[in-house]
Amino acid sequence: MSRFLSNKYETLEPYTPGEQPKTQVLTKLNTNESPYPPAPEVVKAAAEAAASLQLYPDPDCTELRKAIAAVQNVDPAEIICNNGSDETIYFAFMAYCDSGRPAVFPKITYGFYPVFAEITGTEYRTIPLKDDFSIDPKDYYDAEGTIFIANPNAPTGIPLSLDQIEDILKHNPDNVVVIDEAYVDFGTESAVPLVSRYDNLLVVQTFSKSRSLAGMRLGYGIGSRDLISDLNALRFSTNPYNVDRIAIAAGIASLEHDEVNREHCRMIMKNRKYTVEKLSEMGFEMTDSTANFIFVRHPEIHGSELFGKLRERGVIIRHWDKPELADYNRITIGSREQMDILLREVADILAQQA
Amino acid sequence: MSRFLSNKYETLEPYTPGEQPKTQVLTKLNTNESPYPPAPEVVKAAAEAAASLQLYPDPDCTELRKAIAAVQNVDPAEIICNNGSDETIYFAFMAYCDSGRPAVFPKITYGFYPVFAEITGTEYRTIPLKDDFSIDPKDYYDAEGTIFIANPNAPTGIPLSLDQIEDILKHNPDNVVVIDEAYVDFGTESAVPLVSRYDNLLVVQTFSKSRSLAGMRLGYGIGSRDLISDLNALRFSTNPYNVDRIAIAAGIASLEHDEVNREHCRMIMKNRKYTVEKLSEMGFEMTDSTANFIFVRHPEIHGSELFGKLRERGVIIRHWDKPELADYNRITIGSREQMDILLREVADILAQQA
Repeated sequence: MSRFLSNKYETLEPYTPGEQPKTQVLTKLNTNESPYPPAPEVVKAAAEAAASLQLYPDPDCTELRKAIAAVQNVDPAEIICNNGSDETIYFAFMAYCDSGRPAVFPKITYGFYPVFAEITGTEYRTIPLKDDFSIDPKDYYDAEGTIFIANPNAPTGIPLSLDQIEDILKHNPDNVVVIDEAYVDFGTESAVPLVSRYDNLLVVQTFSKSRSLAGMRLGYGIGSRDLISDLNALRFSTNPYNVDRIAIAAGIASLEHDEVNREHCRMIMKNRKYTVEKLSEMGFEMTDSTANFIFVRHPEIHGSELFGKLRERGVIIRHWDKPELADYNRITIGSREQMDILLREVADILAQQA
Repeated sequence: MSRFLSNKYETLEPYTPGEQPKTQVLTKLNTNESPYPPAPEVVKAAAEAAASLQLYPDPDCTELRKAIAAVQNVDPAEIICNNGSDETIYFAFMAYCDSGRPAVFPKITYGFYPVFAEITGTEYRTIPLKDDFSIDPKDYYDAEGTIFIANPNAPTGIPLSLDQIEDILKHNPDNVVVIDEAYVDFGTESAVPLVSRYDNLLVVQTFSKSRSLAGMRLGYGIGSRDLISDLNALRFSTNPYNVDRIAIAAGIASLEHDEVNREHCRMIMKNRKYTVEKLSEMGFEMTDSTANFIFVRHPEIHGSELFGKLRERGVIIRHWDKPELADYNRITIGSREQMDILLREVADILAQQA
């Protein structure tokens, strides 16, 4: 840090993204990327857009919002596109949290929420999960703050039902409720159909996971026209061209061939079922995840030890040192081949343990 | 705006980007884009990167920073890459302005500075230009705030010399001085060589103009390791993956073929000289611009009238309604063909005026 940095950041601890190894890695299961590349038509659209990079993108993302609107069955005016869904969530912290209005989110959830609170100078209140790691909607009644819930939750993968989301919305008519659906497409019900009935609901989605575009940075928010207008005021006051020409072209092509994405999601869900079964047979305990990752522990090997031993063998998963998570690991669901490598190495580690 | 938006944004007026027309435009000279596409190798690198978009980008931009460092003759640790140089400037407002430290910038300059001040809750003080639209370094001595200077300035195109920049730095040892060099490559001396000697200097550059990548969103800051560490703390607390895989690949390829960019800059400077001569012959008055735009007025036709008449003829330039600018227009320097269209239409408009 320099001697010039504003002291308002004294307590700031930046987010630590999952490792992006620079050397060749056999099996990367640590940042919930899709094992499948985007459809060939998406690659082609991105390549074609590269030829006119001397021109600015459309800051309104008009055509991309139309394409999202058609798939999500909402109006384009109910959509804001951003440089990854993290940016949409950041704007929501900026817009709907302040000295009189804290952020409210589960104690165990996406690790970026407390960082967004810190960077925006927002107080926050965390609510413990139940013993089975699930969220109790009643804990969020009359929250007296802006609610952020990842659905399914991270890193547990446990979803709330649409009725439970609606229950939270009904009991917070004067609080904005942000539902972060980064992992919704692997078996969780989306809250988008509630947008037309609840002016306090903002749903955040991304092209990163279920649409194989983590490297492209493309996310969006869906909410009432008024909420979207708030977020656009912030977007046009920070970085109006945040979504680039290639992201716009790739996003549109991805939605035009969404059946490819849906098939990839089905394959990942099948690989998840397979992995869960095999790991259970080996004695692993885990949450009932509807995400493209699973959250697992084994009674005979500590989370950090399993993490370290897998890493030595070229398999990278995600581990956190926090006491309440340290016994667990989060494993991204990859291709069947990747899962078989994981299962083989885990079996071998457990055998040596015995 | 919604009923939920924080009242801290009550006075916020978002930035208005130059129009990006959705329909076919004959001659677009309003947002300082390059008339020349990026080198074929850049387009190829972007297309190749598209094939692995399912993976996150390297949040450290390691290879891209190395490539910039080699061209700029600095250390990679003295560089931060961002999603366009606007984002770098936004981070500088966040980092170096607060309730005790206002922003200080010229009264006439890049219109985003006051917006960045507003969105970050920063007071700001503007310093008038001299009558000839130039900046007097003495006005910035002991500024008691964080200084933002576009060099060359916008929309005038008038540069400060390296000695003048150093003069400002010397007289502000305890204030950060941000030199925004978005347009530096068209004939202005860069302040990057001063970075090693002044820990209060942050230089901001972009791939948008001189490297034909406005559509890609790629900018960077160069400063001491400590300043860069500050800005990275903010970057990793808001959007660590803000620079996407394709931007990284395109940026590296662009620097590997920087002779193409330099040739484009030479052509633009030649077209500028040509346009300035022809417009002067028609009676236009203008600043001595070292940017890829010129700032012009004609004694016999008001700025807004010329703007409107050119627009009717399919030539879009940039006009501001502010009293001190309204008599002028900013015209991007495009290809020789574009300039000839502009000159022909302007001559025709003036002839009808007479």
